[in-house]
Amino acid sequence: MPLLNQPLILGQQFIAGQWLMGEAGVFQSYNPITGQCFEPNMSYATPRQIEQALLKAKSAFVAYSNTSLLKRAEFLLVCADEVSKLDNRLVERAIQETGYSEDRILTEKKRIVYQLHLFADLVKSGDFLDIRINTALPNRTPTPRPDLRYVNKALGPVVVFGASNFPLAYSVLGGDTVSALAAGCPVIVKGHNSHAGTCEIIAQAIERAIQRCDMPNGTFSLLFGEGNDIGQQLVKSPHIKAVGFTGSTQGGKALMKTAEHRDEPIPVFAEMGSINPVVLLPDTLEKNAADIAKQFVESFTAGAGQFCVSPGLLIAIDTPALQVFIDNVSTALANKPANVMLNEGIHQSFQTSLNAMKAHDDVNVIALGQKVVQTEGCFTQATLLQTQANSFLMSESLKEEAFGHAAILVVCKNMSDVLKVIESLPGQLSGTIQGDETELVKHQELITQLSEKVGRLVVNNFPTGVEVCEAMVHGGPFPASSDTRFTSVGTASIQRFIRPICLQNTPEMLLPDSLKNANPLKLNRLVDGVYTRKSIDF
Amino acid sequence: MPLLNQPLILGQQFIAGQWLMGEAGVFQSYNPITGQCFEPNMSYATPRQIEQALLKAKSAFVAYSNTSLLKRAEFLLVCADEVSKLDNRLVERAIQETGYSEDRILTEKKRIVYQLHLFADLVKSGDFLDIRINTALPNRTPTPRPDLRYVNKALGPVVVFGASNFPLAYSVLGGDTVSALAAGCPVIVKGHNSHAGTCEIIAQAIERAIQRCDMPNGTFSLLFGEGNDIGQQLVKSPHIKAVGFTGSTQGGKALMKTAEHRDEPIPVFAEMGSINPVVLLPDTLEKNAADIAKQFVESFTAGAGQFCVSPGLLIAIDTPALQVFIDNVSTALANKPANVMLNEGIHQSFQTSLNAMKAHDDVNVIALGQKVVQTEGCFTQATLLQTQANSFLMSESLKEEAFGHAAILVVCKNMSDVLKVIESLPGQLSGTIQGDETELVKHQELITQLSEKVGRLVVNNFPTGVEVCEAMVHGGPFPASSDTRFTSVGTASIQRFIRPICLQNTPEMLLPDSLKNANPLKLNRLVDGVYTRKSIDF
Repeated sequence: MPLLNQPLILGQQFIAGQWLMGEAGVFQSYNPITGQCFEPNMSYATPRQIEQALLKAKSAFVAYSNTSLLKRAEFLLVCADEVSKLDNRLVERAIQETGYSEDRILTEKKRIVYQLHLFADLVKSGDFLDIRINTALPNRTPTPRPDLRYVNKALGPVVVFGASNFPLAYSVLGGDTVSALAAGCPVIVKGHNSHAGTCEIIAQAIERAIQRCDMPNGTFSLLFGEGNDIGQQLVKSPHIKAVGFTGSTQGGKALMKTAEHRDEPIPVFAEMGSINPVVLLPDTLEKNAADIAKQFVESFTAGAGQFCVSPGLLIAIDTPALQVFIDNVSTALANKPANVMLNEGIHQSFQTSLNAMKAHDDVNVIALGQKVVQTEGCFTQATLLQTQANSFLMSESLKEEAFGHAAILVVCKNMSDVLKVIESLPGQLSGTIQGDETELVKHQELITQLSEKVGRLVVNNFPTGVEVCEAMVHGGPFPASSDTRFTSVGTASIQRFIRPICLQNTPEMLLPDSLKNANPLKLNRLVDGVYTRKSIDF
Repeated sequence: MPLLNQPLILGQQFIAGQWLMGEAGVFQSYNPITGQCFEPNMSYATPRQIEQALLKAKSAFVAYSNTSLLKRAEFLLVCADEVSKLDNRLVERAIQETGYSEDRILTEKKRIVYQLHLFADLVKSGDFLDIRINTALPNRTPTPRPDLRYVNKALGPVVVFGASNFPLAYSVLGGDTVSALAAGCPVIVKGHNSHAGTCEIIAQAIERAIQRCDMPNGTFSLLFGEGNDIGQQLVKSPHIKAVGFTGSTQGGKALMKTAEHRDEPIPVFAEMGSINPVVLLPDTLEKNAADIAKQFVESFTAGAGQFCVSPGLLIAIDTPALQVFIDNVSTALANKPANVMLNEGIHQSFQTSLNAMKAHDDVNVIALGQKVVQTEGCFTQATLLQTQANSFLMSESLKEEAFGHAAILVVCKNMSDVLKVIESLPGQLSGTIQGDETELVKHQELITQLSEKVGRLVVNNFPTGVEVCEAMVHGGPFPASSDTRFTSVGTASIQRFIRPICLQNTPEMLLPDSLKNANPLKLNRLVDGVYTRKSIDF
């Protein structure tokens, strides 16, 4: 444990350029495999310290949001550079705080860097500004048309609640933070207590990037807090204009409620997870039961099932091929060792959910991973359950997520049952269909119906693996996310943190570069109904 | 009164293709100039009839939202054609129900037609689909990238509450309805009782367009109801996925609250008006006081001030030129006859707001339109009030909209006062600065600060006149609108009624035309980071 007692982590809050010891008590993050706590103590921010971060974010807003596209892109690239340069102590700490493998943590580190590059390119392109110009028609009758120029601007300071399950890729400098910074919004991150040391190391990298790029100090802060008070204070603050959250349904709904009760309501982008149904059509099962079973086991046990898009629900018609599938799952699962969960809270919650499902009269366990042999730490056993369509339809609790490596197979008598099961589901992040082309064409209604329930429709893949790219949608109808109109992963996620403004009849010299007639940035703009990178000449 | 007792208007609800007499009582719209009520009685829908419209909208959704872009554009054009063909009885009825001039009503009729054409072009372009494709990278290590295709789809059935003040351009077939239909969403309009006959005639035109284009009957319904119950039932319905509203702050907030309390929260796009500050900078006032005064009087008295963007607040530094401006306003206003308001409710509400302002200790009337000479009808007198910056800063009620032709001049000692007044304002639809280029450059801080408060920043124009085009923003920070990220006028308003979905690894034959490799519609698509209208060739 080379990190223990090292001065790299000091347990402080990073408030707008200053590292300050939190004055509201201390806590320790711990290794979920061994239960061992890390030194030194981490600290909680006081309400006064939280307010300080809020005021600094507000005062940084105008300067940061008006940085040029090139400077802002450069800042993201320097953040990427600083993360790249972090030595192995980051990786070791993240492994120790999460129980994840080195491969997983290295992948996440690469993803931070890749994501920052992708957003830097997006910022440079100016495409997210969605510039629309209608030039003046001074001679139009009966009334002239004024010159009108539409551009997206940053919404304001954003609070980000990092995810527990992506200590790098969706935490302090994860998707929410990067998309908000790219939009021009200062960010306050409420760090996740269970990987607090990892958070602090990443914040140090951001600090160096802010200094190198001479960005306003209030551009970024990292705070820690106990319980719900810190979240309430942050979300209630009039200085905050949007919230990004990844976590439990309960947590997300609480923040939505707080935001609604403000004098000025603000959007909360909460990604609250789902059970991600997978429909197994009979013909493909007949042909590929063994393959599909293998892929399913890999997908639902990856990271102990601690993915928002882990497939927690299988839907299939009762056929002999289904039994072959189950047998293959059973064999594959029997080789999967018990796996560790991220922290004691998630561990407990998973066990409680799983036990509740098992206690259901019409639910049976049909396949199991290896038993937990560890005598300490947050280990759990992967479990596949089974029930009948009728029972599933009548139970709301079976439709809720057990965050972890558990899934339930719903056995249907026929296609009509399958459609009823889909229809009964709340909104989902993803929905998957396994089927050969002939049966997919035959079951167009299934595809249509599933499309209405999900943000991402997957065919003959499994849903785990959320690609960071232009075309990703990580979101979906409520309660999968708070607002199905937005994604929290991929470049489209920047749309959460911008708003349009129209400048009417503004003299050329007062226009930002993006809107000037000369189009000095060579942006793609909609000018009088036509997209062009040309200048406007009168 | 050639319309009275004519069979054109029957006082029925239009529920998914059927005209049905409402069974929850009757009402009459009336002429606000004469007070005369129109025959025949209009009728209110029962909760059962409302539910019928909701079910039909839901059942029409899949079919309507999956119409091809060309067919949907054609439907909008046929709606335009049917409105164009409406004879003078529409215009007469609208004049009689609103008290507006024939010019105004004819302009609104043209705007309906123009707006439908603009959205038909938008639908055909497919630009609002925001298509993003990342092609598969099967050989990428360590993990392959699947094929990912992002496209916007219709959100679901939409409820529209038409505006009182635009009986054609923002009512039954106004901006909300047109943008929702363009997005692929069925629409239920809650007709405005004060121009109910006008609503019915427009619904007849839509009915003919639905028949001509063979659209599902549930694509459109028109209902009437008394009080808040109908709105509550519509917004609470699980079949409804978004709401468009234009009206009072109180009404908008009530609908937002209802939507938040649903099991599945939905977006409410409420445009609730504002006082639209106008800053008069001293140098320009010195040069152009008379001109600016004239323009201001035209802007704030137009349509008896019944525009969401009517300038209700002037902010100026105390200079001799300001007195010249006031004198000119006074002269011009003295020539403005009393004007009629849309209905008794708006009439009363305006008088109440105006009287409350007048009763304020530090508020004086400084200019008046002509007195009301009519002994009946909803006539009111245009009024300009004046107060000091300090009094305005301390009074919340002076910052609220008096919907109608009243405005208040806030006299400031210096620029610092002006900035304080701006800073104290809640969100606004528009903010205007009158200034010459030299002083505009000098007061960059004012521009920056005002930009944070508004959806549209106007320079050396007045804010009335909301152009329907690509670059318009009619919205603004709360409480001007419920969600500053969206406009309710212009082509960008379609963004309110769509959501993205990502199709992963979907076989070509199952993809919609918009996403096929061959790109048969020749849409502009973001393919692997590059915008192109080309096909994808492997």
